[in-house]
Amino acid sequence: MEYRERLIVKPGSSVKLADIDPGFHGRHETHEKATPELEETLAKIAPLQELLYAEKKHALLVVLQGIDAAGKDGVCWHVIRAMNPQGTTVTGFKQPTAEERAHDFLWRVHKHVPGLGQAAVFNRSHYEDVLVVRVHNLAPKKVWETRYDAINEFERQLSESGVTILKFFLYISKEEQLKRFKVRLDDPARHWKISDSDYSERELWGDYTKAYEAMLERCSTSHAPWYVLPSNHKWFRNLAASQIILETLQNMKLKAPKPSVDIDVIRQKYLKAAEDG
Amino acid sequence: MEYRERLIVKPGSSVKLADIDPGFHGRHETHEKATPELEETLAKIAPLQELLYAEKKHALLVVLQGIDAAGKDGVCWHVIRAMNPQGTTVTGFKQPTAEERAHDFLWRVHKHVPGLGQAAVFNRSHYEDVLVVRVHNLAPKKVWETRYDAINEFERQLSESGVTILKFFLYISKEEQLKRFKVRLDDPARHWKISDSDYSERELWGDYTKAYEAMLERCSTSHAPWYVLPSNHKWFRNLAASQIILETLQNMKLKAPKPSVDIDVIRQKYLKAAEDG
Repeated sequence: MEYRERLIVKPGSSVKLADIDPGFHGRHETHEKATPELEETLAKIAPLQELLYAEKKHALLVVLQGIDAAGKDGVCWHVIRAMNPQGTTVTGFKQPTAEERAHDFLWRVHKHVPGLGQAAVFNRSHYEDVLVVRVHNLAPKKVWETRYDAINEFERQLSESGVTILKFFLYISKEEQLKRFKVRLDDPARHWKISDSDYSERELWGDYTKAYEAMLERCSTSHAPWYVLPSNHKWFRNLAASQIILETLQNMKLKAPKPSVDIDVIRQKYLKAAEDG
Repeated sequence: MEYRERLIVKPGSSVKLADIDPGFHGRHETHEKATPELEETLAKIAPLQELLYAEKKHALLVVLQGIDAAGKDGVCWHVIRAMNPQGTTVTGFKQPTAEERAHDFLWRVHKHVPGLGQAAVFNRSHYEDVLVVRVHNLAPKKVWETRYDAINEFERQLSESGVTILKFFLYISKEEQLKRFKVRLDDPARHWKISDSDYSERELWGDYTKAYEAMLERCSTSHAPWYVLPSNHKWFRNLAASQIILETLQNMKLKAPKPSVDIDVIRQKYLKAAEDG
């Protein structure tokens, strides 16, 4: 349970990504040695999610951000998969459609916020509106500047309605990204994943770093903290993410709801049904 | 792969549930002996679903129907879980809301139909409108009578738009249902699952049987066949469902899409990036 405390961005603190090691893997030495702990952690998530679903007093929202190839899809596959697909939604936010652009930037994400009893994952999110939008000047500074406060208010309002928000920034090094691009290039079955913008976006690495730092500094709040997950090692990223999700569910003190029926009455009905055959 | 052929309701055939053994478990003798085959089948589903997602030429819709405790939730947990949560949605259809009731009966399900590249599961579905509605006279006969044709047309239209539809009727015996009710009764942690209507609905078993038979006879079509999954044995139900899903995905002849970029150009960009460090 140590990584939650260790990887959180303390509200109000300043963030220098250069001071964080994306290759960090804690006390775990290798993928092989970490696997049993990952499996154990994942296995504990499922029954808690069932209680979340039953009790309908809490909701869980997991936000994933990170540069291309940082592993957002990998977290969906290796971690979120531990959850029951019934009661869990994963929404990927791509370039906004014409209809989405015709609305305020929170409109399209608001629709996918989990209801009580539900878990939801945002693969990219409203944070794109202070990341790609900022880096590429897709909106003037005076527009995106106001969004940090708007996001904090939006998330506070959600959290007051019972939504627990976890935000994971998957942090890889520039070298690690290039290695992952190479893997795609070397495997024809993955060629379809290659996008023309992969390399041009890399040239904006410094600008993205600044935008990520601003996002982490200005939007890590007590009600919706950011976690920086060192993600050069996919297995560590998965382990850290699953630990934080598990501990968050444990802290909810979830309980099965009281029966909606009188169990003694039901027992009589059962006995009668058993007699009738 | 034998169960697909064996469990399909041939379009135009008549169905007598009394002639089908809900305890059927094929050539598989026990849960333990069937488990490796289930695991193997599930493991083959994931990479095909990735191709479905990548290619975006097909969609998969799995409809689950069955009486209370037949195992609809169990299929979601044990079978659908093999799929990537990103690209898969599970929608449970409960009693319609006021807004849903103010629309035609297909309105609320249409919204959740999978787009190309997506898989969707309906836990209960538009078929409730020829099941519970028929059994409880929630609409006059002249209304629900027209719905079989409406459903067939709706599903044909979906299938012509690239959606492959699999409909699973989970078939348990009346005795098996009672056994499962007993398990809930004996385990306080499951008491919240008990509903007052469990036993009153049982008294309508004969009416439900008729409604299921009509649904299977009138709505098993070549473009959207029904399968009757003998479900007294949960493990057999899971095995049969996963086999049918796997074979359906295999028949789609899914292929990774061609790269959207010139790979030689990308290779040059990679080499330059590697030099630049």
